[in-house]
Amino acid sequence: MPQFRQVSIIGLGLIGGSLGMALRRGKVARRVIGFARHEATVQRAKRRGAIHDGDTELCPDWLGESDLVVLAVPPDDAVRMARQVARLTTHSFVMTDATSVKEPIVRSLETLLPSRIRFVGSHPMAGSERSGIEAADPALFRGAPCIVTPTGRTDPKAVKQVSRMWKSAGSRVIEMDPKRHDALVAQISHAPHLAAVALTLLPEEAALEVAGGGFSDTTRIAASDPAMWEQICRMNRKEINGALERLMAGLGRLKTAVAAGSAGTLRATLRGAQARRLRFKK
Amino acid sequence: MPQFRQVSIIGLGLIGGSLGMALRRGKVARRVIGFARHEATVQRAKRRGAIHDGDTELCPDWLGESDLVVLAVPPDDAVRMARQVARLTTHSFVMTDATSVKEPIVRSLETLLPSRIRFVGSHPMAGSERSGIEAADPALFRGAPCIVTPTGRTDPKAVKQVSRMWKSAGSRVIEMDPKRHDALVAQISHAPHLAAVALTLLPEEAALEVAGGGFSDTTRIAASDPAMWEQICRMNRKEINGALERLMAGLGRLKTAVAAGSAGTLRATLRGAQARRLRFKK
Repeated sequence: MPQFRQVSIIGLGLIGGSLGMALRRGKVARRVIGFARHEATVQRAKRRGAIHDGDTELCPDWLGESDLVVLAVPPDDAVRMARQVARLTTHSFVMTDATSVKEPIVRSLETLLPSRIRFVGSHPMAGSERSGIEAADPALFRGAPCIVTPTGRTDPKAVKQVSRMWKSAGSRVIEMDPKRHDALVAQISHAPHLAAVALTLLPEEAALEVAGGGFSDTTRIAASDPAMWEQICRMNRKEINGALERLMAGLGRLKTAVAAGSAGTLRATLRGAQARRLRFKK
Repeated sequence: MPQFRQVSIIGLGLIGGSLGMALRRGKVARRVIGFARHEATVQRAKRRGAIHDGDTELCPDWLGESDLVVLAVPPDDAVRMARQVARLTTHSFVMTDATSVKEPIVRSLETLLPSRIRFVGSHPMAGSERSGIEAADPALFRGAPCIVTPTGRTDPKAVKQVSRMWKSAGSRVIEMDPKRHDALVAQISHAPHLAAVALTLLPEEAALEVAGGGFSDTTRIAASDPAMWEQICRMNRKEINGALERLMAGLGRLKTAVAAGSAGTLRATLRGAQARRLRFKK
């Protein structure tokens, strides 16, 4: 027996498309409906088995039959789309999102949405430097952490339903306060993203010609969608600022150790990082 | 007809082991001899098909029959091992290395070695966060750049032989002055390595629990051998210092754009990095 009668996914990019595929293959939803801006995307999502049906306009009937609505759109669009869904429906259902910033979105939606729409913030820590429905992969969430961010105002039953859905898609679910989420994610995703951008822009052209696997790995995420990342940086600016400050301080200490030829300090730092990275092993 | 009668590889770690395997499989050398500090490593290298025979002590007879000697040891050991090889032999042969820093090593060896030993500096841009003979892989060099660094004092025939050897192992060979090598490699390998170290040490423990693929990619190389990297940092300190300074300046500009909410500046920078990274495509 599927967990959901019908799931509507708004946004059929990498995340929305992969989720649709995972929900259909895992028989988590009897029916998956998808909405995207372009008809070609809707058609591709159908062909790829991500959705049963879909449209370029939010359809009140389809939304009305859904027991879960997932906002799989960039941060700037999430609040706007949620309000539109609220205007077009009258029934009660669970709603979640998949954006990389939680505090501003959760806080807005808790204020703006009617109580019949039980919103729970989500952030699957899965992704790729690729984007769009063509990059969608039903195994995208397998083994990846997914942060779910209930607050004092969140319906506990809705939290359970959303967590179960992500688990069915293969994720390892961790619950966390939205503010805490934004602080931690600045450290392991947002600041590393900007570091990858700076590293990509560092070498002169001739150096790129001889770059190998190390450069390739450290800069891979810099190929991600600039528009989405500009939004993330804007929405989580305070935490990112703090994380970048600490990162630059760490780099500064390494620079000083290199310049001074402090073999002991340098070796200790390199060893600490190696031990930590091996413990993380992914 | 193999290019070499006998190749001696000193050091049977990831690079030495992988090179031995590639030379044997590609029938580049009729016989491959290997030297390592520990008997167990020599035995494992034999079992893995990296060498025909080997020892824990440099053997004058084996070296004497070699037309190529490869120093596949960390930077600090390269000069010392080269001198030892010179003391133990009287015949003429080609010698190369595989270290990540070229100027100090090439300059030392050009002064120290007798003219019968025709040294050519090499740096295969291949590697892994793993090390040791167990991680060796005959395909390690396939498609990877290999920088060969002749100077005005290098024998052109030796350069040709060394280049041909790396090409046979699968590398794309690029010739470059040793000083230029050290400057470029600081930008695409040494500074990115230290950035990966700083990124690994940035997050609090709780953040590591929820880290995903982006963090994994950007920090992978921080798991590499700390002792070797301390040596690289010491030997290329001036260029690394300059590259880190420019990297920190780039990060500082990103930080300012994030803090000021300069969407335009930020988007332009993210777009520039994306275009560059997509062009690099690896």
